[in-house]
Amino acid sequence: MTLDEVRAQIDQNDSELLKVLRRRLDLVKQVGQIKSKEGTPVYVPERELSLIAKRRSQAEELGLNPDLAEDVLRRVMRESYGAENDVGFKCVNPDVRKIVIIGGRGGIGRIFTRLFMASGYSVEVMGHRDWDRSAEIFAGAGLVIVCVPIDVTEEVMRKLKGLLSDDCVLADFTSVKTLPMNIMHEVHQGPVLGLHPMFGPDISNMAKQLIIAVEGRSPEKSAWVIDQMTLWGALVRKYTASEHDEAMSYIQALRHFTTFCYGVFMARENPDLNTLMALSSPIYHMELMMVGRLFAQDPVLYADIILSNRRNIEIIERYSREIQNSIELLKKGDREEFIRQFSMTKDFFGPLAESFMEESRRLIAKMHDAKVS
Amino acid sequence: MTLDEVRAQIDQNDSELLKVLRRRLDLVKQVGQIKSKEGTPVYVPERELSLIAKRRSQAEELGLNPDLAEDVLRRVMRESYGAENDVGFKCVNPDVRKIVIIGGRGGIGRIFTRLFMASGYSVEVMGHRDWDRSAEIFAGAGLVIVCVPIDVTEEVMRKLKGLLSDDCVLADFTSVKTLPMNIMHEVHQGPVLGLHPMFGPDISNMAKQLIIAVEGRSPEKSAWVIDQMTLWGALVRKYTASEHDEAMSYIQALRHFTTFCYGVFMARENPDLNTLMALSSPIYHMELMMVGRLFAQDPVLYADIILSNRRNIEIIERYSREIQNSIELLKKGDREEFIRQFSMTKDFFGPLAESFMEESRRLIAKMHDAKVS
Repeated sequence: MTLDEVRAQIDQNDSELLKVLRRRLDLVKQVGQIKSKEGTPVYVPERELSLIAKRRSQAEELGLNPDLAEDVLRRVMRESYGAENDVGFKCVNPDVRKIVIIGGRGGIGRIFTRLFMASGYSVEVMGHRDWDRSAEIFAGAGLVIVCVPIDVTEEVMRKLKGLLSDDCVLADFTSVKTLPMNIMHEVHQGPVLGLHPMFGPDISNMAKQLIIAVEGRSPEKSAWVIDQMTLWGALVRKYTASEHDEAMSYIQALRHFTTFCYGVFMARENPDLNTLMALSSPIYHMELMMVGRLFAQDPVLYADIILSNRRNIEIIERYSREIQNSIELLKKGDREEFIRQFSMTKDFFGPLAESFMEESRRLIAKMHDAKVS
Repeated sequence: MTLDEVRAQIDQNDSELLKVLRRRLDLVKQVGQIKSKEGTPVYVPERELSLIAKRRSQAEELGLNPDLAEDVLRRVMRESYGAENDVGFKCVNPDVRKIVIIGGRGGIGRIFTRLFMASGYSVEVMGHRDWDRSAEIFAGAGLVIVCVPIDVTEEVMRKLKGLLSDDCVLADFTSVKTLPMNIMHEVHQGPVLGLHPMFGPDISNMAKQLIIAVEGRSPEKSAWVIDQMTLWGALVRKYTASEHDEAMSYIQALRHFTTFCYGVFMARENPDLNTLMALSSPIYHMELMMVGRLFAQDPVLYADIILSNRRNIEIIERYSREIQNSIELLKKGDREEFIRQFSMTKDFFGPLAESFMEESRRLIAKMHDAKVS
């Protein structure tokens, strides 16, 4: 056969591949219908694991790379979880007449509005122009979620004083928890639940998405909210406000700060970005991507996160002292100490270092797949 | 149908999916055979683009997400490029009797040894114990590649003085170029070619992998090396030694330094890693991954890269002053200046910021696919 003839057969085979994918998503829709009736969560870990295991062993038999089978299947499952969404979810608390989402027109707000509606709740979205109608809006609400930018959270929460009935659950999505939890307990006499959805507005579906829950007053009365989110496929993990905020000082404040500084520094040095990109290894491309992406986002959000508490600045100052130490190290050309600190840090990461290495390999390969010369 | 019945059909469909993948790789093997005869490169950008375009439009017709089709196809193409490798490559310079790879037993060395052999060259791998046989080893060599750790590169190169015939191409894989290029011109009277493969030892194949080439003495005599690597699918880009080294100060030295400092700092702060991981958003998981992975690797390599020239330390010192400025900014709570610098940096990244954002979305989704609760 000529090259063109073989390529024609490959195209035909690829076309068959898409038809098989189409069939899968049609079958998945039926799964969604059954689950929404039965009230089964979208994400069932055991099912996912057994699916993967079956295909990996079949791949071995076919002389295929099992990682190929797993990668393809996982990508298809992402789409499948989305398809299960279409048919809606069981409503775990039909007694709730109304849910109000303050700031529900934002990216995250829209996701939850859609999912609560798809679960049979009546949802009212409240924007900053609607406060003159607040009495009417909050009347009969069984759940009110504050989902506004961190810099106006306190102000908005204080406006709620006296507007909610004592059986209404007051919740928030703020990325810090201690202060908002305190304010919510002040302004509301009923159940309080702090939530922090750990994902961006661009997720395709809720399967395996992490939501941190901080329980406030009478958790038994807000438990249904967590149950509902679990049905959507979310992983809801409970922590205290201080556990959450301490972790966030590292997870958000310090990391955003270092990324910010790195980006600003590059801008000042002003090397030719095209040359940098052309000379980049995949891993550096990824590093630069992680920095550059920050600056496609809202500066105010990052300023507020970093400035949200005193502890963040203290951590950042300790970090800058570490940088000074390392520079002294290098100026002395002290390889031994560099290597000693390297091994100390290797011990800190423990087995994670290796699994991070492996995980980054897979991501770099995926990034490379999309590379265009 | 019951949930179990639908799931059985899904399993059957997934099994069909793997058979279609198996057929594709069989067809691809034939492509490899034809290409190795004709001497066509493994990676043909136009072919890849047209493949993707066809499947995306078919997906639209089928009511499938075109991104699903593209993601699956790209993953399958990665495997396909590997399968094309199996049958070997055309030899672009049959006159070369022998290729010697000094340090060819290392990860990168092994990849090139395999590919040169698969292209019909006789390859001799030289380890550090083989120098007593050096005269015999280098006799009649048409290409000698120095592929040893950066800290012994100079020493090894100097040993070559007088051992190579003037028609032999002397090349290296060092991750800095200025100094090695100078030494190679000193120790050898024939053609000199500096190379820097911008990938790790774990690539599945050479398709679209970047190799930086720095041309030295009589480039016309080393052009065949670049042609051969292009046949393997590599993207070979030519730069001067100084262009390369200046970019590497940012790409390698500065970035490795900041990653090193961040890791060491975390180790000193010693927060509970399990809690951090449990509370991580996908994007932070990725950030922590990028840091942790460094410490699964060889500290000496990173020390040597950072210490490889004076400019690196100067850049790092300027960077640390930037950090001091940013800390002052935050202590003053100067939101306006934070936002001003943020926008300045956004301008520096220009359209890249958005495309980095988009790219990171895809990688985060991919990472999330593999998440196990």
